[in-house]
Amino acid sequence: MDRRTFLATGSLAATASVLPGAGTAAQSVRDERLFQRIDFTSDGLGLDPHEYASRLQAMAGRDGFLADNYSLGGEVAKVEQAFARLLGKPAAMFVATGTLANLLAVRRLAGDDRRVLVQAESHLYNDSGDGAQLLGGLNLVPLAPGQATLPLTEVRDWVERSRSGRVRNDVGVVSIETPVRRRDHTAADFGELERVSRYARAEGIRLHLDGARLFALPQHSGQPLQAYTALFDTVYVSLWKHFNAASGAILAGSEDFIDGLSHERRMFGGALPAAWPQLALVEESAARFQVDYAESWRVADALLGILEASGRFRARRLGDGSVRFYLSVAGTDPAGFVQRIRQRGIRMAMPVPGTGEIPMQVNATLLRAAPDDLARRFMDALHA
Amino acid sequence: MDRRTFLATGSLAATASVLPGAGTAAQSVRDERLFQRIDFTSDGLGLDPHEYASRLQAMAGRDGFLADNYSLGGEVAKVEQAFARLLGKPAAMFVATGTLANLLAVRRLAGDDRRVLVQAESHLYNDSGDGAQLLGGLNLVPLAPGQATLPLTEVRDWVERSRSGRVRNDVGVVSIETPVRRRDHTAADFGELERVSRYARAEGIRLHLDGARLFALPQHSGQPLQAYTALFDTVYVSLWKHFNAASGAILAGSEDFIDGLSHERRMFGGALPAAWPQLALVEESAARFQVDYAESWRVADALLGILEASGRFRARRLGDGSVRFYLSVAGTDPAGFVQRIRQRGIRMAMPVPGTGEIPMQVNATLLRAAPDDLARRFMDALHA
Amino acid sequence: MDRRTFLATGSLAATASVLPGAGTAAQSVRDERLFQRIDFTSDGLGLDPHEYASRLQAMAGRDGFLADNYSLGGEVAKVEQAFARLLGKPAAMFVATGTLANLLAVRRLAGDDRRVLVQAESHLYNDSGDGAQLLGGLNLVPLAPGQATLPLTEVRDWVERSRSGRVRNDVGVVSIETPVRRRDHTAADFGELERVSRYARAEGIRLHLDGARLFALPQHSGQPLQAYTALFDTVYVSLWKHFNAASGAILAGSEDFIDGLSHERRMFGGALPAAWPQLALVEESAARFQVDYAESWRVADALLGILEASGRFRARRLGDGSVRFYLSVAGTDPAGFVQRIRQRGIRMAMPVPGTGEIPMQVNATLLRAAPDDLARRFMDALHA
Amino acid sequence: MDRRTFLATGSLAATASVLPGAGTAAQSVRDERLFQRIDFTSDGLGLDPHEYASRLQAMAGRDGFLADNYSLGGEVAKVEQAFARLLGKPAAMFVATGTLANLLAVRRLAGDDRRVLVQAESHLYNDSGDGAQLLGGLNLVPLAPGQATLPLTEVRDWVERSRSGRVRNDVGVVSIETPVRRRDHTAADFGELERVSRYARAEGIRLHLDGARLFALPQHSGQPLQAYTALFDTVYVSLWKHFNAASGAILAGSEDFIDGLSHERRMFGGALPAAWPQLALVEESAARFQVDYAESWRVADALLGILEASGRFRARRLGDGSVRFYLSVAGTDPAGFVQRIRQRGIRMAMPVPGTGEIPMQVNATLLRAAPDDLARRFMDALHA
Repeated sequence: MDRRTFLATGSLAATASVLPGAGTAAQSVRDERLFQRIDFTSDGLGLDPHEYASRLQAMAGRDGFLADNYSLGGEVAKVEQAFARLLGKPAAMFVATGTLANLLAVRRLAGDDRRVLVQAESHLYNDSGDGAQLLGGLNLVPLAPGQATLPLTEVRDWVERSRSGRVRNDVGVVSIETPVRRRDHTAADFGELERVSRYARAEGIRLHLDGARLFALPQHSGQPLQAYTALFDTVYVSLWKHFNAASGAILAGSEDFIDGLSHERRMFGGALPAAWPQLALVEESAARFQVDYAESWRVADALLGILEASGRFRARRLGDGSVRFYLSVAGTDPAGFVQRIRQRGIRMAMPVPGTGEIPMQVNATLLRAAPDDLARRFMDALHA
Repeated sequence: MDRRTFLATGSLAATASVLPGAGTAAQSVRDERLFQRIDFTSDGLGLDPHEYASRLQAMAGRDGFLADNYSLGGEVAKVEQAFARLLGKPAAMFVATGTLANLLAVRRLAGDDRRVLVQAESHLYNDSGDGAQLLGGLNLVPLAPGQATLPLTEVRDWVERSRSGRVRNDVGVVSIETPVRRRDHTAADFGELERVSRYARAEGIRLHLDGARLFALPQHSGQPLQAYTALFDTVYVSLWKHFNAASGAILAGSEDFIDGLSHERRMFGGALPAAWPQLALVEESAARFQVDYAESWRVADALLGILEASGRFRARRLGDGSVRFYLSVAGTDPAGFVQRIRQRGIRMAMPVPGTGEIPMQVNATLLRAAPDDLARRFMDALHA
Repeated sequence: MDRRTFLATGSLAATASVLPGAGTAAQSVRDERLFQRIDFTSDGLGLDPHEYASRLQAMAGRDGFLADNYSLGGEVAKVEQAFARLLGKPAAMFVATGTLANLLAVRRLAGDDRRVLVQAESHLYNDSGDGAQLLGGLNLVPLAPGQATLPLTEVRDWVERSRSGRVRNDVGVVSIETPVRRRDHTAADFGELERVSRYARAEGIRLHLDGARLFALPQHSGQPLQAYTALFDTVYVSLWKHFNAASGAILAGSEDFIDGLSHERRMFGGALPAAWPQLALVEESAARFQVDYAESWRVADALLGILEASGRFRARRLGDGSVRFYLSVAGTDPAGFVQRIRQRGIRMAMPVPGTGEIPMQVNATLLRAAPDDLARRFMDALHA
Repeated sequence: MDRRTFLATGSLAATASVLPGAGTAAQSVRDERLFQRIDFTSDGLGLDPHEYASRLQAMAGRDGFLADNYSLGGEVAKVEQAFARLLGKPAAMFVATGTLANLLAVRRLAGDDRRVLVQAESHLYNDSGDGAQLLGGLNLVPLAPGQATLPLTEVRDWVERSRSGRVRNDVGVVSIETPVRRRDHTAADFGELERVSRYARAEGIRLHLDGARLFALPQHSGQPLQAYTALFDTVYVSLWKHFNAASGAILAGSEDFIDGLSHERRMFGGALPAAWPQLALVEESAARFQVDYAESWRVADALLGILEASGRFRARRLGDGSVRFYLSVAGTDPAGFVQRIRQRGIRMAMPVPGTGEIPMQVNATLLRAAPDDLARRFMDALHA
């Protein structure tokens, strides 16, 4: 395949593989696999605007597709219901960003007990503009610096210390992110999640799960999705990471928790008048994610087998890792390699300065090629 | 034309009239005008999802169309620059909702002077969930209940009273909405805007304009757009009301004001990872809005002339009105009339209980038919 | 009644026992009685530091006098219990300032319903630094500008309007000040208080009474103290205005309301490590206030009778007035008059610029002289 | 040195003049001197209400003693000026509690950079009801758990991490408490204070010193008071711990910092209408504190010398300790010992459960007896 061929087939054709009816004709699917972009930088399909809009048009043209009204009803409600079901929670609400989903969750769970225990490495503590503190009036206590797992001992210490102050500062919420973006998407230890959850519930403390990329975990831990969500009162999952939304998040919890929460979403300026263009691709992506993700890792594993056997590549898998591994290339400048392989339809991030390792994200674009085809392109790109 | 014909032509064709290149073939445009939906309930074209997605696909396929990254750059930057230019301000930022745009504006303008004078009838005071107060920590003082215009006398009284308290509560901002949604989109008096602006500036008080539907005003007041915006430090304009965005708002002001404001947008959870699907239709709609809106009113005026001459209809235009008038129908039940005319491709809101008046919004869908054609459909719908 | 008689009968006699050197020399006490200052500028006795400290020492030397510990227990608890009883509420808490008392009250009563309706003329809205808004995150809606009475119609309008917004902004509290300091201590209409209370309770809205000078009202309205307090969930009364505290306030309400509130007092930095030096004179002052205040007005009325008969003075009493009246002097410069009468042991405020009226506050220092003695001093001071 | 000698030389002599009935009968004064209580539980003189009020009366009777007006002017201003001078800062303001002093300080220093680095063990983080977070809208980041010293490495890590988040969360303030109450009043390392201060200033970060008991440090570290305060922009010192106020704190800083701060004090409900009864004893106590404290330790050291020589007592001094040491008693139940020595005019805290150690606070009440007299009472109390 050369670049011209890829371009000639057109980007719209490419979308067929995830459009309704995809897979009914083995031949056409196989053709598509040969020609489409493989993307090791993304969590989802890494659609460009034209690809995204084409799929959106196809979805919007279906019978029964309905717009939402200020993020209520229509396609939004369908996605909310689908995720409530997948996550095993009675109710769910769409939120325009994960930042706001986490903020709404901990703010409402906390109520009058304004201390919230979080991981020092969490997105909520580091990458959310301190909105929970500055706008939500919460005190987020950062624990376990440098770690993905929040140990029960630290949780217990701070719950007890918070009670022993001269003025009551009760801990209202424990919020845990897993996998942890700032720790290369490694996962918190499942046993410790269980222990923290059991302790918190005994103490009347509420639990929030920042599961932006939660759907990847069962593949690695063997624990089903709902084994995680059952440990928490509320769960946030990103829609644009694994599920090809333009933006958006789901916040799931009890009926009581979700009831009336749309008013808070509006107060924060988060009620999009029409949200459906952000999430119309989600329902379908979510339905097939876990199967596709498992299959994507089978492709990745097969590819790595071939590459490592060549002696020119080495993969570093992370303990408790999830969507990411690191790739090393021997005998060539890794930055040059990345640029050459891009010309072969494979998008990779630039190597980490210092180590030269290339961070690699596994996603369903790997299903667009066979491992040996992929491996050939990797080998070809070794040479300038 | 009958309903079947309209349906047969297809909704996508309809979009041609505002798509790039529209008008190159007079014949096809004329045909479209005959068949498309006229919508008296909307501020923009009232696109349904399929229409919207089709236009989006066309836009996204253009050369040079670029996605934004967390609401920064790409198509978002283009819209920001276009609006900065239109509004005569050095800089502008996209915000996902008008609620957040107003909130970011008054919060930043206020700084340490936390009193903000607003109209009692304003959207900011009534329909924003009190976010400025609960999240922004501002004290919004509601003045001039029942009126669209905020009189200088009330502004001055409260500025002085705020200084005379035992503790300093300085007024930092005067925020004015015009036209005022809760007053049937009637406009604040321009002379009073000038006087309030002059006074506030002399006192070092900042000024924000909630101009969600600001672009409609010049047609009615004869004052150019920038005559309004020059009176204010910051201006918010809605993108989804007049400009066919799915959602979104522009907040324009000085370079200093806009600089770094994207961090606050993120803190509120308002940074869509990809915003372009919300606003890709905006740039074009904005470029032609004022011409289209004037033309739309010419159609509306011609239509009302015919209807009133018939003796069966009466239009009530509002003093200082803008996008809305009220229509009365004689000799038939107005609710039945609304339902019958919908079958003739004209969408109207239900009559106001009690008065039976139908609120009518003027927009560019009126350009899809000639006045006499429209009038004929109105007359036809009089009969059950 | 001559001076001797008055002292023999009178309420002031009691105070002698706590004056400096009291009881050591009968003669000196008599002297002091003859010369004590009459003070028309104060709500209480207007004690100077030495007078205050002397009384404090006498109180602190009593058997059973106990210090508080961080504003808990000891003399503080005694004052709390006394006021709970006087106000007919199950519980009460000392707060260092009235500003904080009002703030704690509306913040806790509001809970999640963050709109609070207040008088535009209230101390809470004008003279409290907007703490309820900036620190408490409440939206205080100022109603009835220019009036002492908050009419039910305005309350109902805003309760309903707050429900009709696009986002829920429920009214949680109605807070009413009476008498109103900024309206010359005139009182809100009692019948309207009853109507507002009945309406609010039917709607589940809580009620707070800013009764800084509440104890003066029964004398003027004929309504007993507890007829007022029964209409409200919480009541704040100032301790340093009528009851000779150095500082401080009482906040009374239900057991549930007061329970745990001391933690919020501490969070605001309002828990004095030892509060007793601020309030040790309160218990005694409160016990006798209503009797003394009635007697003080009898003296004032008798004095005004003599003065008005002379044709040189005129008193302007206010409709719904309480502690204040205005005095006009004919035939002399009022500012000069005020200075001359000060040399005769009578303290008055300077005349209001423009009108020349002297604001006069009625308090128990009037019990230190007989009306004819007072009148003589007024007449004498007419002459330069 | 016998008791008489001590009185002749000593610093306590001065206090006699303000004791109850002082000066009226030489004999009774002498008696009181002989029996005065020694108090190992207090930071100051541990005055009871009658003692306090007697001294207050004496102070209030002095020529030129002036009440403050809402915590402005009069005796309050004198104390503010005295502490500004002692602390080497241009300006200072009285605040009713240390909790509020710290809160006002970090809130104003932070401005728009809302992250504040604090010790995990600090009073501000543990014992202030999270007011800085809940009311001040700050994010307090707790560092160095278990330690008195805040290491530069942790400060630098969090300053850098705060800049690296996706949204800017700049660190605005580093707040350090020394000595640290929750670490037995041990002091932060002075060299590290210097390094942190130098780093923060280079980065434009402001510095606050919670020096509630700061005046004790020079005695132990050899560093003069102003060597500490020069490292910080603002300093809080408690008035009721070492200086015999009933309540209160001083917050000192630049003219700019203090200017207008009284409005914020009022907004928090912290402006006592008359503060002088809380602080009238402060000026004198502060002037002599450092001399008295040094002398008190000389008495304590002499006492401990005698006690340890007896073989029945052992003192545990703390590394970097300040006002506290621990005392162990051999051969008797320590709780019984504490009760018996109380009958000999020496107040001690109850032993720590488990260790049996008695926490001992050193203060100027030790100047009320000679070491050998004290030692004799200790020895006597060994026997039931």
